[in-house]
Amino acid sequence: MSDIELVSATKSFGGWLKRYKHHSQALNCEMIFALYLPPAAEGNDVPLLWWLSGLTCTDENFMQKAGAHRTAAELGLAIVCPDTSPRGTDLPGEHDSYDFGSGAGFYVNATQSPWSQHYRMYDYVTEELPALVQEHFPLNGKQAISGHSMGGHGALVCAMKNPGRYTSVSAFAPICNPSQCPWGEKALGGYLGEDKERWKAWDSCELLKRSGSPLPLMVDQGDADNFYRDGQLRPEALSAACEEAGVPITLRIQPGYDHSYFFIASFIDDHLRYHFYHLSQ
Amino acid sequence: MSDIELVSATKSFGGWLKRYKHHSQALNCEMIFALYLPPAAEGNDVPLLWWLSGLTCTDENFMQKAGAHRTAAELGLAIVCPDTSPRGTDLPGEHDSYDFGSGAGFYVNATQSPWSQHYRMYDYVTEELPALVQEHFPLNGKQAISGHSMGGHGALVCAMKNPGRYTSVSAFAPICNPSQCPWGEKALGGYLGEDKERWKAWDSCELLKRSGSPLPLMVDQGDADNFYRDGQLRPEALSAACEEAGVPITLRIQPGYDHSYFFIASFIDDHLRYHFYHLSQ
Repeated sequence: MSDIELVSATKSFGGWLKRYKHHSQALNCEMIFALYLPPAAEGNDVPLLWWLSGLTCTDENFMQKAGAHRTAAELGLAIVCPDTSPRGTDLPGEHDSYDFGSGAGFYVNATQSPWSQHYRMYDYVTEELPALVQEHFPLNGKQAISGHSMGGHGALVCAMKNPGRYTSVSAFAPICNPSQCPWGEKALGGYLGEDKERWKAWDSCELLKRSGSPLPLMVDQGDADNFYRDGQLRPEALSAACEEAGVPITLRIQPGYDHSYFFIASFIDDHLRYHFYHLSQ
Repeated sequence: MSDIELVSATKSFGGWLKRYKHHSQALNCEMIFALYLPPAAEGNDVPLLWWLSGLTCTDENFMQKAGAHRTAAELGLAIVCPDTSPRGTDLPGEHDSYDFGSGAGFYVNATQSPWSQHYRMYDYVTEELPALVQEHFPLNGKQAISGHSMGGHGALVCAMKNPGRYTSVSAFAPICNPSQCPWGEKALGGYLGEDKERWKAWDSCELLKRSGSPLPLMVDQGDADNFYRDGQLRPEALSAACEEAGVPITLRIQPGYDHSYFFIASFIDDHLRYHFYHLSQ
């Protein structure tokens, strides 16, 4: 078995929030991830929701602020939150900005030096970590995926690149079209180089145009979200790409909500119940 | 009207989390407090729950981590979270330890120099801030009070010293008997001086012995809480004082839970519904 080391265990809504440390081969560094195990996991294998967090987050933000444990406990749903980038490395400029490098892995496999030595978050969250958690925890193999902002982009891309892997995908205020927004241009340019053709493999709108999406999509977007207003998120591009590809999407513009975890908390139950429905089919 | 300045407004569960800055006369410094207004507050006066936080907290911890907005929104209950000490001051040693000075006001009125210039958190949370929020927000005048750890102590003491003010009091892992535990001995000694007779006016167990309690009491305590095991919290002393005074108490020892906000989140709904019941009588 691959080694994992328990960092902490905290009882929550009758289940357990556990944090584990392990050496990641994909990222070539030590990583921490968080796992919520509902009460039903004592004695049963349960389905799993992946949560991918946004810029600057670690494995902790969602677990502390989203208020997801109550309904996950009720439904019998496990949740894994990976970190958002490699950690403990010290590449040139890695810690200089909030939207590139540490805390900002963008869930891609970097091809550019020096990032390609560590920044392979896509392999980490779609291959290495799924195998690790399946090996160690009482999971039934059914998986869904969700995320926020940069992590919403990650959830959409992971789902679209892996047909059949996840039963359903959802996102809160995702960066829908990273090849066409400042955050994405900086990150994809830095990790993948300046050839924009290569960026398309990491852009949910481009992936939809290429091959559609076989799985249910649901997106919530607050209309008072500054990053939405600034053109970083572009849900209208996702909506147009879905229409072009003939893919149904539930896109809800939530009036008055911003980009914060209060927005996520307000609607996380809808997402948990949506995923649980599909995980139970 | 007393001046208050809006710091931020964030939509949450259909209501609004608002943070305000104001000059406190009781504390002689500028303070921030947080207010959750449920959707029902648009057009109606609503009842109010005071939440007093624990050591090291600000007005933000409870609002971000307790998951209280959902049920507060459903019930139509406003919540105010004050900060836990004066801020922006720089008294000798004020910022040197987590359990005394800034972030650790203990909800008392200090009598010892230099603390007595600012550390009058009891007057702040029972007089100045109640008048301020009643003046500015759609509140119906009904109030209940709750808190965590140092704030649980604060809630119990505020309730017992002000019969008729609150409809009900509850606490999570409160410091029940501060005159008999290391945290309390340090804080009460520092703020009130070494005459232990004076400490009794700020100890819920002593207050119960003196005059009982006219209002419903509910306390949750996790049995995996390190501070409970270390004798900082002493719910058994509260229970004994209640028995001696003939005061009923609901004291629930919750197996496996620690001192964290995950413990609070797991049981906050019970507390909100308990207070709402009494606020509605």
